[in-house]
Amino acid sequence: MTLACPAPHHEDDVVLLGHGAGGRLTAELLDALVLPALGGQDGPLEDAALLPGRPDLVISTDSFVVSPLFFPGGDIGSLAVHGTVNDLAMRGARPIALSVALIIEEGLPLEELRRVVSSVGKAAREAGVPVVTGDTKVVGRGAVDKVFVNTTGIGQRHPALRPSAALARPRDAVLLSGPVGLHGTTVLSTREGLGFESDIASDSRPLHRVVEALAPLGEQVHCLRDPTRGGLAAALNEIARDSRVPVEIDESVLPVPRAVAAACDLLGLDPLVVANEGCLVAFVAPSAADEALAALRSLPEGREAVRIGEVVSQGSAGRVTLRTLVGARRVVEMPLGEQLPRIC
Amino acid sequence: MTLACPAPHHEDDVVLLGHGAGGRLTAELLDALVLPALGGQDGPLEDAALLPGRPDLVISTDSFVVSPLFFPGGDIGSLAVHGTVNDLAMRGARPIALSVALIIEEGLPLEELRRVVSSVGKAAREAGVPVVTGDTKVVGRGAVDKVFVNTTGIGQRHPALRPSAALARPRDAVLLSGPVGLHGTTVLSTREGLGFESDIASDSRPLHRVVEALAPLGEQVHCLRDPTRGGLAAALNEIARDSRVPVEIDESVLPVPRAVAAACDLLGLDPLVVANEGCLVAFVAPSAADEALAALRSLPEGREAVRIGEVVSQGSAGRVTLRTLVGARRVVEMPLGEQLPRIC
Repeated sequence: MTLACPAPHHEDDVVLLGHGAGGRLTAELLDALVLPALGGQDGPLEDAALLPGRPDLVISTDSFVVSPLFFPGGDIGSLAVHGTVNDLAMRGARPIALSVALIIEEGLPLEELRRVVSSVGKAAREAGVPVVTGDTKVVGRGAVDKVFVNTTGIGQRHPALRPSAALARPRDAVLLSGPVGLHGTTVLSTREGLGFESDIASDSRPLHRVVEALAPLGEQVHCLRDPTRGGLAAALNEIARDSRVPVEIDESVLPVPRAVAAACDLLGLDPLVVANEGCLVAFVAPSAADEALAALRSLPEGREAVRIGEVVSQGSAGRVTLRTLVGARRVVEMPLGEQLPRIC
Repeated sequence: MTLACPAPHHEDDVVLLGHGAGGRLTAELLDALVLPALGGQDGPLEDAALLPGRPDLVISTDSFVVSPLFFPGGDIGSLAVHGTVNDLAMRGARPIALSVALIIEEGLPLEELRRVVSSVGKAAREAGVPVVTGDTKVVGRGAVDKVFVNTTGIGQRHPALRPSAALARPRDAVLLSGPVGLHGTTVLSTREGLGFESDIASDSRPLHRVVEALAPLGEQVHCLRDPTRGGLAAALNEIARDSRVPVEIDESVLPVPRAVAAACDLLGLDPLVVANEGCLVAFVAPSAADEALAALRSLPEGREAVRIGEVVSQGSAGRVTLRTLVGARRVVEMPLGEQLPRIC
């Protein structure tokens, strides 16, 4: 089955898990089915969009379906706040309001619901954003798995920041604010009882303060992206594609925690495609790279920031390559649809 | 089990279907569990809330879990647009942006997904609101029932309108813009194959133009509420409670379509507690009642508007009574939690 736009498809085609994984299948589903159906609208469909007529405000929505509900380093409640706060932050915005919508399975212990909702409240307070409105639906047993949480956020853009995935330029430095692979491997290990969850924890956290630390650099900050579903591979491929530039990163400096590497080895996963919830990728003008790195490292959540690569002058536009430890180069593909469902 | 605030509850207490039905159980869940957990926030938790620092903008969120996905008069896609547009309209706002988040069950035929998404697009275009951002999640078979849709809307308030459930005043006229009971009975009849679905259709439609027609009356429009979950009984009880006034309505003028009455008879339901998705209740100053009624009737969606009652001078504050056809009075209770799950 292919969904490649505008290929026809068959009546018996169905939605696959990979369609929700943030990789190529997701992009194809959006291009072939969702965007044409919503066509005729004013705005593009993005993770965080400008509010029509209010270019200083952005809006972002996300549903969270992570399983299990609780895992080292977070839970579905805190994740739902951080995920949306971070989507706003990647457009250079600080969150000013959040909505929270719960879909609950009949029979869920009230104590679990209380823990989830308390976690939403705590994470929102820590991020400094009020929850201004909400919705609660209950469906029968088996119609939803425990509880799903949607958050929609409104953010106010920092006047100096105008990052976009289409603004990467030749020679830009590629910075990463923290280690990769923690969130996805933690959730998977917890769900499957693999044992790694005693050594690792999700990196789930809000990133708007890190973005604010970059604000003095203004328009020298070209692109910001948090590598969630599809991991670093998806985030870099999206920027390379939208900016039509070749990107190269260096394996020797990539911060992959030892337990993440071990878990990925066991599971046959590439740490580059594993979801993160607490780090960001920044493409900045080369002259601003050192200052940006220092700004990221000035905050606890960016303490381990590193420069992982650059926009290179030679290579195919839109292609991401990795210089391996032995000096070879391999292409970092856009993931087709990672085999890690319900990570966020 | 009771959730009455601040009563303690037991560890084995669980979420019930009635907790999501928009009646007393829902209010108790919010009061006892959700609101305290989200406490410390700036804003109250309402259906449509003011955006902090932007009093001309309102935000509302709703998840739609209706079963079946398609029914006479609408589907989950159009309902998701109308529901949120109407929540904004009840705060005197026209919609300026919508987000759409889908949670899809693996295996859903792409053709069904296409119909749903097309319906979202069509309903949004007809309401004149752009879908500016979205999210798509796919979960495994059995983790969600087919597809759930969340919409969050941003609305711009009409400068002249400041309706609130707390603003009903003695002698206010109570107006209803159209017949009651159609949506709930249509969905239920379709789901259960009762046969009434050949005679009735959901009233699902956007109401922001009806609200705009009331704008010339300005602050004489005291309260607006769309009687969705919990029906007219819940909407009137909420206004009577929040405004601390007694409300009386007249059974002889209540527009209950014959097929709705027949279906309710069969099912043992009170049409007053059945959900609507295309009518509103307006409390207006008595001197403006005729003009308001004419304004409602000037549009197709308000053609059948009627005056159904008033804020009376005698009676218990917060109580809603019905003058029956035989001249008796009965109390219209706040529904505990109607036995109509997954109507919206």
